[in-house]
Amino acid sequence: MKVAIQGEPGSFSHEAARRMVPGCTIVPCARSAEVFDLLGAGKVPVAVIPIENSLAGSVTEHLDLLFGRYEFIQRDCHLRIVHNLIAAPGVKKSDIRRAFSHPVALDQCRDFFGNNPRIQATPFYDTAGSVKHVIASCMRDAAGIASRHAASVYKGRIIAAGIEDDKRNFTRFFLLRKKRRVLPRANKTSIAFGLKNVPGALHKVLRVFSDRDISLSKIESRPIRGRPWEYVFYADFLRGDDKLARGALLQLRAVADMVKVLGVYRAA
Amino acid sequence: MKVAIQGEPGSFSHEAARRMVPGCTIVPCARSAEVFDLLGAGKVPVAVIPIENSLAGSVTEHLDLLFGRYEFIQRDCHLRIVHNLIAAPGVKKSDIRRAFSHPVALDQCRDFFGNNPRIQATPFYDTAGSVKHVIASCMRDAAGIASRHAASVYKGRIIAAGIEDDKRNFTRFFLLRKKRRVLPRANKTSIAFGLKNVPGALHKVLRVFSDRDISLSKIESRPIRGRPWEYVFYADFLRGDDKLARGALLQLRAVADMVKVLGVYRAA
Repeated sequence: MKVAIQGEPGSFSHEAARRMVPGCTIVPCARSAEVFDLLGAGKVPVAVIPIENSLAGSVTEHLDLLFGRYEFIQRDCHLRIVHNLIAAPGVKKSDIRRAFSHPVALDQCRDFFGNNPRIQATPFYDTAGSVKHVIASCMRDAAGIASRHAASVYKGRIIAAGIEDDKRNFTRFFLLRKKRRVLPRANKTSIAFGLKNVPGALHKVLRVFSDRDISLSKIESRPIRGRPWEYVFYADFLRGDDKLARGALLQLRAVADMVKVLGVYRAA
Repeated sequence: MKVAIQGEPGSFSHEAARRMVPGCTIVPCARSAEVFDLLGAGKVPVAVIPIENSLAGSVTEHLDLLFGRYEFIQRDCHLRIVHNLIAAPGVKKSDIRRAFSHPVALDQCRDFFGNNPRIQATPFYDTAGSVKHVIASCMRDAAGIASRHAASVYKGRIIAAGIEDDKRNFTRFFLLRKKRRVLPRANKTSIAFGLKNVPGALHKVLRVFSDRDISLSKIESRPIRGRPWEYVFYADFLRGDDKLARGALLQLRAVADMVKVLGVYRAA
């Protein structure tokens, strides 16, 4: 099955895609909007995107895309993130002066850079792409920081393994499908909503859930483009598509300004 | 007065510092943690940091630092963000192949890059720093994207002005002080809180405010480092240090897991 991802082969999205769709063929895209375009146009049946990291927080661009488009969440999964310093074969750690990677990955290896002051952290658009770049350019004084899988894809050598500061580093990925489809045993719902401009508006919304003893596992606000200091809220609640959840959504539509169901799925 | 900022002279933080502390001398720091270190050690009396952009959302690293340190918010201000393509004198737009800037700034000029496909967006650690870099390195095929002020600081020439996609692009900055001090006419309070692990915990917290008709102007959740999928909440409410607000904070401490007041100040 074809799976669109943002990033290069060997990226963490690639790893999440292999985990959720064993034996899949990935379709790498340079930009996240292209992933949604391919899915919307029916050129791929599914896509895999990172949505949240346990240290760095939400991938806000992906929340915005989920909110603005019509694709539907089908599954989620949690991937442990392990960063490795990867260089061309024969390059020694003492040769390395620059380490390329995605800014979020560089930020998660601060202790490594603190302990190796001769290696300069250099932002790059992608983790796996940084390994591809240093190896394709035959760089002898540079390395990339990426997954173990990236080292095997680009035939690089791992110079230092597990260089992330915090081992409790997980990224949550969504498997997206074009059409809404609720699988059996779905027990989690992701929604987006806006607030009416009245005092206590968020409190009224949350009462919809607490009155029904429905637990929220996440709530987060994001600015709305073009309406400075107004927000859209993203929430996950722990119910599937059952009577209680449908009642909650019905009441939610009455007290909120806008409600969009982003997916109903089985929690990882 | 000395003001610590993250970034180079000519950055948007520099502009916000000039706005809030006219006639100030800035102390530029490479990393945000250094800004807090200087302030904590008493080496500068105040610091200015960006906290939220109306398009890109919160500067999450700064929320984390506010939460983890002991500095206090003294003021906020909203700065309109205008991005300009700036190159060395004599360089023409048709010569330019790469534009360096902070990833957030590049992301806010997507239409410009769409309309100028021969110019490649290239991530750099700082907006003003990118202008300093292209001019100091005498690059003839590159430009930086930064504020008008950066062009004058580094003697660059503005090749294209106002290239941001959305004119409703504002950044909110905080003026920080080491010690808690509530100025007269303060009417806004920023807090951080954690939730008890019980159903409806956030609803209980918000009821503290809605019962008193206190408006929240912002609420946002961030993951807690080292506790995957647990969150700290940041909220702003529209009261200063008065009896009603003190009552709300007292009750909040009873229903929340942890409460920290980050500042009480006059809203911009």
